[in-house]
Amino acid sequence: MSADAFLKDFHLVATIGATPNNGVDRQAATEEDRRTRDWFAGFATERGWEVRVDGIGNMFALVEFRPGAKFVLVGSHLDSQPLGGRFDGAYGVMAGLHAAARIEEQVRAGGELPPFNLAVVNWFNEEGGRFAPSIMGSSVFAGIMDRSAMLEVRDLQGVSVQEALGGIGYLGSDAGPEPVSYAEIHIEQGRILEREGLQVGAVDSSWYTQKLDIEVLGEQSHTGATAMADRHDALVAASKIVLMVHDVTGDFEEEALVSSVGQLTLEPNSPIVVPRRVHLVADLRSNSQSIVEAARESLLRDIAALAEEHDIRINVKDFDIRANQYYPESGVELTEKVAADLGLGVRRMQTMAGHDSVAMNRVVPTVMMFIPSVDGVSHCEREFSTDEDMMAGVDALTAVARELVFGALVEEAK
Amino acid sequence: MSADAFLKDFHLVATIGATPNNGVDRQAATEEDRRTRDWFAGFATERGWEVRVDGIGNMFALVEFRPGAKFVLVGSHLDSQPLGGRFDGAYGVMAGLHAAARIEEQVRAGGELPPFNLAVVNWFNEEGGRFAPSIMGSSVFAGIMDRSAMLEVRDLQGVSVQEALGGIGYLGSDAGPEPVSYAEIHIEQGRILEREGLQVGAVDSSWYTQKLDIEVLGEQSHTGATAMADRHDALVAASKIVLMVHDVTGDFEEEALVSSVGQLTLEPNSPIVVPRRVHLVADLRSNSQSIVEAARESLLRDIAALAEEHDIRINVKDFDIRANQYYPESGVELTEKVAADLGLGVRRMQTMAGHDSVAMNRVVPTVMMFIPSVDGVSHCEREFSTDEDMMAGVDALTAVARELVFGALVEEAK
Repeated sequence: MSADAFLKDFHLVATIGATPNNGVDRQAATEEDRRTRDWFAGFATERGWEVRVDGIGNMFALVEFRPGAKFVLVGSHLDSQPLGGRFDGAYGVMAGLHAAARIEEQVRAGGELPPFNLAVVNWFNEEGGRFAPSIMGSSVFAGIMDRSAMLEVRDLQGVSVQEALGGIGYLGSDAGPEPVSYAEIHIEQGRILEREGLQVGAVDSSWYTQKLDIEVLGEQSHTGATAMADRHDALVAASKIVLMVHDVTGDFEEEALVSSVGQLTLEPNSPIVVPRRVHLVADLRSNSQSIVEAARESLLRDIAALAEEHDIRINVKDFDIRANQYYPESGVELTEKVAADLGLGVRRMQTMAGHDSVAMNRVVPTVMMFIPSVDGVSHCEREFSTDEDMMAGVDALTAVARELVFGALVEEAK
Repeated sequence: MSADAFLKDFHLVATIGATPNNGVDRQAATEEDRRTRDWFAGFATERGWEVRVDGIGNMFALVEFRPGAKFVLVGSHLDSQPLGGRFDGAYGVMAGLHAAARIEEQVRAGGELPPFNLAVVNWFNEEGGRFAPSIMGSSVFAGIMDRSAMLEVRDLQGVSVQEALGGIGYLGSDAGPEPVSYAEIHIEQGRILEREGLQVGAVDSSWYTQKLDIEVLGEQSHTGATAMADRHDALVAASKIVLMVHDVTGDFEEEALVSSVGQLTLEPNSPIVVPRRVHLVADLRSNSQSIVEAARESLLRDIAALAEEHDIRINVKDFDIRANQYYPESGVELTEKVAADLGLGVRRMQTMAGHDSVAMNRVVPTVMMFIPSVDGVSHCEREFSTDEDMMAGVDALTAVARELVFGALVEEAK
């Protein structure tokens, strides 16, 4: 499989769910998601690879070298944020498919037979934009989240994961392959590689993250006829919470904590009704667990005082807590070695964003790699990585996956 | 028609679209709205009254005494806010139907033949919760709003007024009766009558109101991977605007200005994406036009400074401006006289909320009456008025409507 074939496939898949400004809108288990899944299945079956779908919609394309042996998994996710970029996730799946095709070609052409099989995976709902929490498919596969509970999660329209996956024909019943190691390549979504002129990031750890699910309960009343003094406006209180979540970052060193409110819904959301209920989700992230915990404590204190001041109820629940994860040192070194062999600039780095590899790293030795993001922007249509950087990344992933099927990082293979 | 018959009908209609806590959810042109409309049409046709529906969904039940004569209109609206109360609007329509039935009984029983006919009206979309602006049907009827433009208004799901009315079978093509005067009775939605132990409010004027349509345009990015310094978070800026809209009331005498943001939507509204766009509607009301204008000026200045500070675009448009309206003095006196005759306590008052009568008062002499609201609450399930107050109001409306069909307030009748 040539670099040209990779670019052709990548840019073809980017047309599925394409948006006017070069992005994609392929939220989990939508019609657009189904079309990328059909394309993924077609790529595999054309090559005679078996396709399996498990009970949370993860898709596996199996390249079997040695019947009965365990599998090295490579991949990422084809779903996107609403009006997201065409690189986030999709790049890693496409790179995985092409890396697998190259390795198979080498083996079929008379190369040495590896001890492990290889599978390319498209994880369900990494983004979490439609169904929270994010990183859902890989977390269920890794046993960190409960499958039955996740199938019951509903989007803002009340559709469950189970209904949505069934609706697009991708609620499977296969067990999925037994994994022995995992590799993923992803766009950085930050500016470090670009600023330093490097091609590859060897990710050594992930940030500590948690979310707060916040419900503000005021009282619905008429915006015209109700005196200001008689109101219990849920949106006024919620707006103060949005600003608290933003301002709490100022209590710590610059950029040591990032925080935001990305989701907020209002009831009844009518121009002439004082809002009775606001539901919002706050996201806190830091390399330091103690910073996230201190920010959370400070927010809980301030929110309790706010509820008292406004004479309204505010319910806060912890949600989606993810500890720092450290990728195995041997995997980081493998990325560094592969990059050096290919003549690519490389450095160690952290990931602030969550990834499927964070879940997989809990159960098997995992390698996580980044390629540069132009301007560091992501989760928007303007997200961009160059063809050259993408091709270099496919080469690096191919080399890493090749080492993995031959037993790198795996104790039992030694 | 007895008081018992009125109460039976009122409490029957309150079961249509009933919510768990004694409210109703009958937003304009929904299935629940259709069912109240069918009931209204049934009440009329049972009595041999002709029912007409005009091109914006207003329904008229015609009680014709003198073929070719103009019509006195009485009524209000059967639509509600989402999770609204069962009195707001519906009380006035039900009172209008029973007042008309009583007057017809008197005339048919050999009473004097009045110079004018009588019609009961159920105005389309007074609430404006689903389709903005509010007071839509009566404003189109009065020629203040353009019918074609209003038919194109869409709800948050993208459904147009035309599609919604067509969908429930209530997009008519009749012209509606030619009006000569209008009377409406409504719950106060405030605490004045209750506090003073009075049964009837004679409304002499309405507040000056206006809305601001505000669009905040930031940049979508990843909540985890984007440095705080690189963000252009539309929700952080929008939250500051919500607080500005609230705090601007403090620049004036207590309760001289009321303001709120009742509608706010976020894009893309995903927990791990920094919001790119927030759309919100601010509502400003005061008895004094100059106070609303001063508040607007102050907000525009502060919003422009905020846009610069956050390096984002904020678009603000004026919208739904309604000048103070003064109801005719002769109508206020008529209410006072009728209340005195019936032995009911009465006082002059203003309306802070908009009503269909505000639109109708622009084209024909109009009488507006209030009955007490328990605790002054409205636009919520807890809205309440007593059976006794409702029955007294029906008596008052009947007496006023009787005076109107005999020519009160109308120059040409003299």
